[in-house]
Amino acid sequence: MNKIFASIITIGDELLIGQVIDTNSAWIAQELNKIGVPVKHRIAVGDVWDDIWNALDEETKHADIIFITGGLGPTADDITKPLLCKYFGGKMIMHQPTLNFLKHLFENVFQRPMIERNIKQAEVPDVCTVLKNEQGTAPGMLFEKNGKIFISLPGVPHEMKWITTNHVLPIITQKFNTGFIEHRTLLTAGIGESYLADKIKSLEEALPSDIKLAYLPNYGMVRLRLTIFGTDKNKINQEIDHQFSLLKENVKDVMVIDEDLPMEAVVGELLKEKNKTIATAESCTGGSIASLLTSVPGSSKYFMGGIVSYDNSIKEKVLHVKKETLETFGAVSEETVKEMVQNILQIMQTDYAIAVSGIMGPDGGTAEKPVGLVWIAIAGNKKIITKKFNFRFDRNRNIQLTATNALNLIRQLIVDNS
Amino acid sequence: MNKIFASIITIGDELLIGQVIDTNSAWIAQELNKIGVPVKHRIAVGDVWDDIWNALDEETKHADIIFITGGLGPTADDITKPLLCKYFGGKMIMHQPTLNFLKHLFENVFQRPMIERNIKQAEVPDVCTVLKNEQGTAPGMLFEKNGKIFISLPGVPHEMKWITTNHVLPIITQKFNTGFIEHRTLLTAGIGESYLADKIKSLEEALPSDIKLAYLPNYGMVRLRLTIFGTDKNKINQEIDHQFSLLKENVKDVMVIDEDLPMEAVVGELLKEKNKTIATAESCTGGSIASLLTSVPGSSKYFMGGIVSYDNSIKEKVLHVKKETLETFGAVSEETVKEMVQNILQIMQTDYAIAVSGIMGPDGGTAEKPVGLVWIAIAGNKKIITKKFNFRFDRNRNIQLTATNALNLIRQLIVDNS
Repeated sequence: MNKIFASIITIGDELLIGQVIDTNSAWIAQELNKIGVPVKHRIAVGDVWDDIWNALDEETKHADIIFITGGLGPTADDITKPLLCKYFGGKMIMHQPTLNFLKHLFENVFQRPMIERNIKQAEVPDVCTVLKNEQGTAPGMLFEKNGKIFISLPGVPHEMKWITTNHVLPIITQKFNTGFIEHRTLLTAGIGESYLADKIKSLEEALPSDIKLAYLPNYGMVRLRLTIFGTDKNKINQEIDHQFSLLKENVKDVMVIDEDLPMEAVVGELLKEKNKTIATAESCTGGSIASLLTSVPGSSKYFMGGIVSYDNSIKEKVLHVKKETLETFGAVSEETVKEMVQNILQIMQTDYAIAVSGIMGPDGGTAEKPVGLVWIAIAGNKKIITKKFNFRFDRNRNIQLTATNALNLIRQLIVDNS
Repeated sequence: MNKIFASIITIGDELLIGQVIDTNSAWIAQELNKIGVPVKHRIAVGDVWDDIWNALDEETKHADIIFITGGLGPTADDITKPLLCKYFGGKMIMHQPTLNFLKHLFENVFQRPMIERNIKQAEVPDVCTVLKNEQGTAPGMLFEKNGKIFISLPGVPHEMKWITTNHVLPIITQKFNTGFIEHRTLLTAGIGESYLADKIKSLEEALPSDIKLAYLPNYGMVRLRLTIFGTDKNKINQEIDHQFSLLKENVKDVMVIDEDLPMEAVVGELLKEKNKTIATAESCTGGSIASLLTSVPGSSKYFMGGIVSYDNSIKEKVLHVKKETLETFGAVSEETVKEMVQNILQIMQTDYAIAVSGIMGPDGGTAEKPVGLVWIAIAGNKKIITKKFNFRFDRNRNIQLTATNALNLIRQLIVDNS
């Protein structure tokens, strides 16, 4: 086995001025991990000739496989292709199969004329292997130098993913005799990172040296991840499974699930398994809980629908919350969310329901009801539970914390069959 | 003026195996840009002693200010603090003001006992300046070496942001006499990157050498950004404003807005300006459009509410779509979205409404109605417009493309007062 490392270079000024968040690197890293290639470095540079050139030099020292994403578009700020051509000592030539594919795309799919800029996208350095891009106009390119490989991909996520899956990963697994990496991840909720660390202190200290434990806190939940690297797939799987079962035993009272699933998928799995349905009545989260639940493929099996009653008039007219409840206790109150959850259960005829109302900020807070105050109600056919939260963060974070906590509360209710 | 550059080092295995997407770097880069400090490099390394050490050595060559985020938590995988202590030749001491603050936090805010791990978070290298963290338990640290400054911050986004805004940025502006960076960004919709590039070709070629143009394509929209860097704030503002007005003139028929605003904020601004209201009826997007509209602070002024009619029974019972419409034409049809939009306008009593129905995948497609087929209807008090789309991507991308296109269609209707 060769221990192979990868580096990822992302190119684009937009990454350095913070206009765009890089999601490509995370995806590439996940895929490389699956085939036993750890990523050692990730580096972002601007559309600057010398910076790209130096990054190539630098990453060659650290890694065997260098991914380069971005800078392949048809516009003048994209300099990656001529730079790679020079770096690897080639000259630009027209790549006929790519040109043919582009002609086909413009004629049949885009149905618009091809312009000079598009034709130029079919030009590639004569020293590269072209990686066909069936999802767009810029092909991928593979270069080799001193036993290392360099893969240049467009920055558009779905194009980058398609080329990686269909061309790059098969080439890497074939070319390098890589080892295996295994991860086991579990999700906990309702316990802080420090307490969790104390809870599993002796287990952590007794971990074999080839297994690494990581804490990943996120919106009131903490994921725990074990990682092992080795050559014997069976052996490392046995070893990590053994440690993972010990870990699960240690945290069983706070564990949500022993997989790396987001909370909305955990709730979805439970509903599917128990053949139950759910609906939402949202005020302050404005549809985020419904949107999280429906982000899961197949959610139409259990998610019936939701009402976003942002304005009080909608709470009254559509959700049928009593006028006097709203007037006496206000929209952000235990009484209001209780009526919201009872009514949505009735309206949507579901087994479970979630209702939330709160003040997300930055404006709208008062001394009595400050920004961050949230009431959540959850209901099954047997039980209604209400809970008050005081978050103290910004609007976006308050919305996400409300959604996560609401999903965790309903999860517990479903687990209990209540 | 000194031309000052920054580098950002993010630490954590979770970044290299792709479990977490790095949003901190983008935010730091934005803030640094505002005070005239361009970010030259961004690098991510794992929780590995040598890799962090080498990254510090390497980035010192490129930058004057080095940000280091992550690795400051209370758990055993966080090695950043002892490493920095050694790197800068210090020894660990208890920082009494931090300890006092932690005691206060645990006693009054968290209301749980403080454990040994938490106490250790108040220890810092004696060679650093402590940057108080009012949002959490890990303080920030500032080190100086050979005229360069190193800032170590916790990875939790709201803590990192609070320390940067309240301590780091004021220190940088005071210490370095930085120049100014100005950006001007505009948003276009409904035109591809290549066509846009052709449209502004002569303008782009005539740009002064100190102004940079960038194309930022995203979900069927392209943002164009001009950037200038210089010492004379008035002069660079005048120069970039002049070029920006030429650019706007060139793209006026496809321009959505001459600011760097997301589409949902553009729609919100228009509604506020015209004192109009909006509601949504969503099937396939599952609440995403409502959630986008309400992500904007102050949206309660114009967003009344929405119905997520995911299941057909909800389309019928709650949205009052006729049974025969659903049976004859199906849920994903022009007829259904037309009724959805008419009914939601009625139910929510708003000036404008959006309705969408489609097949997002991966399952649920047929030969006649494939994955990616979406019908959008938008309505004002005078007009209803329906439009069919054929997206061909994955679930998440289809949802986002549907939301963006629906928002752009309603924007045009509001602009036209229709």
